[in-house]
Amino acid sequence: MEMNFRSDNESPAAAAILAAIQEANLGTAWAYAEDHWSERLDSAFSELFGTNTTVLPVSTGTVANSIALAAVTPPWGSVFCHRNAHILHDESGAPEFFGNGLRLVPIDGPNGKFTAASLQQAIRATEGHGVHSYQASAVSLTQSTESGTVYQPAEITAICEMASHNELVSHLDGARFGNAVAALGCHPGDVSWRAGINLLSFGASKNGCMAAEALLIFDDDRSGADGLRERAERLRKRSGHLLSKMRYVSAQLLAYIQDDLWLGMARHANAQAALFAAAVDAHPEATLEYPVEANEVFVRWTAAGFRRLEEAGIQFLIWPGGDDLARFVFSHCTLAEETQALCDALDR
Amino acid sequence: MEMNFRSDNESPAAAAILAAIQEANLGTAWAYAEDHWSERLDSAFSELFGTNTTVLPVSTGTVANSIALAAVTPPWGSVFCHRNAHILHDESGAPEFFGNGLRLVPIDGPNGKFTAASLQQAIRATEGHGVHSYQASAVSLTQSTESGTVYQPAEITAICEMASHNELVSHLDGARFGNAVAALGCHPGDVSWRAGINLLSFGASKNGCMAAEALLIFDDDRSGADGLRERAERLRKRSGHLLSKMRYVSAQLLAYIQDDLWLGMARHANAQAALFAAAVDAHPEATLEYPVEANEVFVRWTAAGFRRLEEAGIQFLIWPGGDDLARFVFSHCTLAEETQALCDALDR
Amino acid sequence: MEMNFRSDNESPAAAAILAAIQEANLGTAWAYAEDHWSERLDSAFSELFGTNTTVLPVSTGTVANSIALAAVTPPWGSVFCHRNAHILHDESGAPEFFGNGLRLVPIDGPNGKFTAASLQQAIRATEGHGVHSYQASAVSLTQSTESGTVYQPAEITAICEMASHNELVSHLDGARFGNAVAALGCHPGDVSWRAGINLLSFGASKNGCMAAEALLIFDDDRSGADGLRERAERLRKRSGHLLSKMRYVSAQLLAYIQDDLWLGMARHANAQAALFAAAVDAHPEATLEYPVEANEVFVRWTAAGFRRLEEAGIQFLIWPGGDDLARFVFSHCTLAEETQALCDALDR
Amino acid sequence: MEMNFRSDNESPAAAAILAAIQEANLGTAWAYAEDHWSERLDSAFSELFGTNTTVLPVSTGTVANSIALAAVTPPWGSVFCHRNAHILHDESGAPEFFGNGLRLVPIDGPNGKFTAASLQQAIRATEGHGVHSYQASAVSLTQSTESGTVYQPAEITAICEMASHNELVSHLDGARFGNAVAALGCHPGDVSWRAGINLLSFGASKNGCMAAEALLIFDDDRSGADGLRERAERLRKRSGHLLSKMRYVSAQLLAYIQDDLWLGMARHANAQAALFAAAVDAHPEATLEYPVEANEVFVRWTAAGFRRLEEAGIQFLIWPGGDDLARFVFSHCTLAEETQALCDALDR
Repeated sequence: MEMNFRSDNESPAAAAILAAIQEANLGTAWAYAEDHWSERLDSAFSELFGTNTTVLPVSTGTVANSIALAAVTPPWGSVFCHRNAHILHDESGAPEFFGNGLRLVPIDGPNGKFTAASLQQAIRATEGHGVHSYQASAVSLTQSTESGTVYQPAEITAICEMASHNELVSHLDGARFGNAVAALGCHPGDVSWRAGINLLSFGASKNGCMAAEALLIFDDDRSGADGLRERAERLRKRSGHLLSKMRYVSAQLLAYIQDDLWLGMARHANAQAALFAAAVDAHPEATLEYPVEANEVFVRWTAAGFRRLEEAGIQFLIWPGGDDLARFVFSHCTLAEETQALCDALDR
Repeated sequence: MEMNFRSDNESPAAAAILAAIQEANLGTAWAYAEDHWSERLDSAFSELFGTNTTVLPVSTGTVANSIALAAVTPPWGSVFCHRNAHILHDESGAPEFFGNGLRLVPIDGPNGKFTAASLQQAIRATEGHGVHSYQASAVSLTQSTESGTVYQPAEITAICEMASHNELVSHLDGARFGNAVAALGCHPGDVSWRAGINLLSFGASKNGCMAAEALLIFDDDRSGADGLRERAERLRKRSGHLLSKMRYVSAQLLAYIQDDLWLGMARHANAQAALFAAAVDAHPEATLEYPVEANEVFVRWTAAGFRRLEEAGIQFLIWPGGDDLARFVFSHCTLAEETQALCDALDR
Repeated sequence: MEMNFRSDNESPAAAAILAAIQEANLGTAWAYAEDHWSERLDSAFSELFGTNTTVLPVSTGTVANSIALAAVTPPWGSVFCHRNAHILHDESGAPEFFGNGLRLVPIDGPNGKFTAASLQQAIRATEGHGVHSYQASAVSLTQSTESGTVYQPAEITAICEMASHNELVSHLDGARFGNAVAALGCHPGDVSWRAGINLLSFGASKNGCMAAEALLIFDDDRSGADGLRERAERLRKRSGHLLSKMRYVSAQLLAYIQDDLWLGMARHANAQAALFAAAVDAHPEATLEYPVEANEVFVRWTAAGFRRLEEAGIQFLIWPGGDDLARFVFSHCTLAEETQALCDALDR
Repeated sequence: MEMNFRSDNESPAAAAILAAIQEANLGTAWAYAEDHWSERLDSAFSELFGTNTTVLPVSTGTVANSIALAAVTPPWGSVFCHRNAHILHDESGAPEFFGNGLRLVPIDGPNGKFTAASLQQAIRATEGHGVHSYQASAVSLTQSTESGTVYQPAEITAICEMASHNELVSHLDGARFGNAVAALGCHPGDVSWRAGINLLSFGASKNGCMAAEALLIFDDDRSGADGLRERAERLRKRSGHLLSKMRYVSAQLLAYIQDDLWLGMARHANAQAALFAAAVDAHPEATLEYPVEANEVFVRWTAAGFRRLEEAGIQFLIWPGGDDLARFVFSHCTLAEETQALCDALDR
């Protein structure tokens, strides 16, 4: 049996999501996000988040991140993010492309997180001399982080306050936002707009959807032609991301947040990760690289140990840069038996 | 009853396409187009077209067009296209964005088509003085055209020869490629690579898919890092169009071309259009604006006449710029009864 | 003797300009436009134009035009200009590069000019559908025009009013602004800010300077970080146009406008052009292609006639696209004897 | 008396340079770098460097750097440079703008220099996964460095070999190239093409010119439309840097390298710096921050000490980030008495 712990990106869509797509497939519908599904998004997410929310459905997290950053950062503006951030390492410069040469500035920090203090330090360290230098413009956090940890509401609040104090806009890359909210057991607003986040890349593909993400803009003043929504919509169209049949993306998003489906799926993934984390913790040799707070488990072990797991038909990622660190990701569809088999293989 | 002749973009997906998606939904699959569906595309399309074909699945026609043009045109290069081309009028400058400021040059011509001679004339008219001017780099045709007409293989061949003679690359925007091939009854290669087309935006969304298009590169020499495929893949990633769960796009494309499903759907749409065209032709007042050769019918009539159709529950587009021209589009799912009802309403 | 009527771009700098450079060369001066010469520009030009004027010295007209347009046009915005405009034909896409893919839309019109009515028509003709289309953003006039004619203040006013009515910003490419003002005998404000022009590319290189142009921003509210001046300064720096030793450019500009030096030089050039125009007018075969209103004369004649002039050692431009149209340009340093010799050669 | 040690950017032009400009001002000359001065550049620099050299005159170092990097780096390519490099800190993202979002990657190293080993390490550390990551494309060195030190020929050779081994192009930012060559007493080829440098930003403005820099391309195969020269010329034109009256820039460059004028001026500046360095070295409190190898002296001292110098009418830069580090720059026109006065003030 092949068991896949490589990435939640490799999981199939949930049955309820497919059902929603099928339901959306009856009859014709206006194109280019003017359909009934897409038009329900603003109110559905406004209700979910408890504040006025503008929703742009898109099909990848990369484009949600890139539109968000390009919409608030001038070409001569810089965006602060963690050194391991997806926007920095895994998007081939999409933010730079959308932002016409904006610059990403890495911040170091343990466990995939940085602090308000380290943000302040980074702003200072790159502070320039007027027109000769980049202008600090935005900060981007990742929740849950690339290390599988989760920012507490107070940590995000502190960072956003520091950002705001320096006139930076705050963006959250929520590719695994569901896993974070499920882990914290908080209201989604607590780690977004209430904490000071202005723009959220709301991920759904990794947690049960087919290809559905959303760029959320909180408290937009909806000021028309010059506003943030307008810029974001222009960037979406101009980058080829305004699907003609957007209804299928929007239908996924609506189903995803209905009746807390998203939280249920995320809770399941987190729980499986926790089971394996406990097994690693109890293991005489293997150790946890980071606290396991969501659905990802980074294990430090021997190359020989990892090879044994592979031979047992278990798929996971040897982390680039060595052979003694590996990542295991748990998803909405990871079976309890698979997790058990993984734990058993570890202990064998 | 509401009957929608506004756009094939508003049609639902075909049952076989949804079934293919469902089939692709079993189990996990490698992400980022390294799944089994995506990896079958090159061979499936090479077989369909009868030549070595590189396939990049994407989710919109705009991105297929933009990647194609940006991959072969320097920022100081110009692309020739018909004055009514989608890339010029309906993509908000996506080709200019992907191509870092490349320029589109319109060519006039009746029935949505231009000729080799008018291409030559346009190249001459914009011929510049070295480094001060744009450099003629590519030509982009649309098949079937924005006017619902179809280029004959010999017409495309002549244009591509003229392009090649001037060292231009030839691109075909095939948003409705299926309708054109079905109309011509020819081999798909006859209006693409055999006619001299280098890059094809192969459309499927309008003709029965959910969101599935493909950029096809013919006879690519697969020269590695500097080659066309590499540039196209970089542009796809960098614009946020490399879906993590690409399998669902690829599965649509595979199902779409299997057993000539695409041609059957296109033939149906074309046939419905022909029925309505005949009715218009026989009408005492309404007239056909262009020859009806695929699935679109442009009708010149009175504002009052069009209003009557609307009152009969018929949806269609009053063409921008006046009130006496309208477009009716027929799709894979247009019911024969709907077409009949439309014809009846016209004659009432 | 070689006589050069090819272009005013080929003339040397005036003695007073060189003297100003030499004067600026004494001692050290702060770099990057913080020197005493650069800091006097705002007040000197504000006085010249009779209104609050922000001045950015630069070294080419192309960069002045490109910064101006990019500062007021979003990447999805379009700029209307005459079909023969320099920004369209001779800048290799610099406006598109600075403007991240903005689009130039040509307007036709006789004698190098277009009207408010034709601007309105062009806006209508390219009017799109929301986010799918470019957004009309700016208009760019050329004064004197590429055909050597001059817009009357009322003509500019009408165009700017139409622009403003459509929420477009108005830009004037004044590569030969001095020749126009000298020809009109008006106040420079009459064909710029008083007529509704917001941004002016003030040319000086063609009319006696070495390499000195200025982007003028009228009535800027100087609102700081988000304002037009800030954007223009950022674009100048980012495109490598903030010279460290800017004092030499600014010194040229100050000398150029002092005691009406610029108008004197322009008047001289215009007068020489008028002499030649009279000769052409009186000629039995040669004819004037456009009214001669500034320092350029376009002559329609026979290829054989032009060849005879060339054989007489006269340099001029056979206009691209044929052999029976030629351009003769007169500059601040054209000698009366040269003009006389040209007239004689014509009549021979 | 005011004495300026703030920057060599603030020095006036040398008399010989002004004389060359005046000489170039006689009569008309073809525009856009087709004049006799510009056309002599290739041969003059080929002779100076002892190899086939293509020369593009420009007016700032920023544009020379940006064209160089953009001509050899795809938008998804990365450029490695020292953490203190001018391209990273002082050009407001010009390389990113010209390169459509290329990325600069900083390398640490003492005294403003990095090594072949640290380049290798940086390449490894940013090594990505195919299309998801930036592709290592170029390396950029600064000579003399931002810390006033100088790379030995062997150090550059080692870095360029490492670059070449990794398929990177090697660029040298030679804003103070003259100071470095004068310091080393070597042939200019020894620290450029013979060491493996492909592209050199040859600076002249800081060392006696008004505004004259040159992008040098070594051993270009001159392959026509697709070659490096073509790309560089296109980028120059498109960024508004092709001056119509380029003769004045080219005349400066020709005079600058004639009879070793440039080396004489650089030697003078270096010698003055050495005198001050010796004084600092002998001082009981003040210390040299970096080895003084060219014309810049970085002094670590007390805020009170620096204040005393300022009160003595001495201008210099307190280095950003504190109050106990300052930079003193010596130029071609620093008077021996000024240096002496500075040394005296230090000792007072």
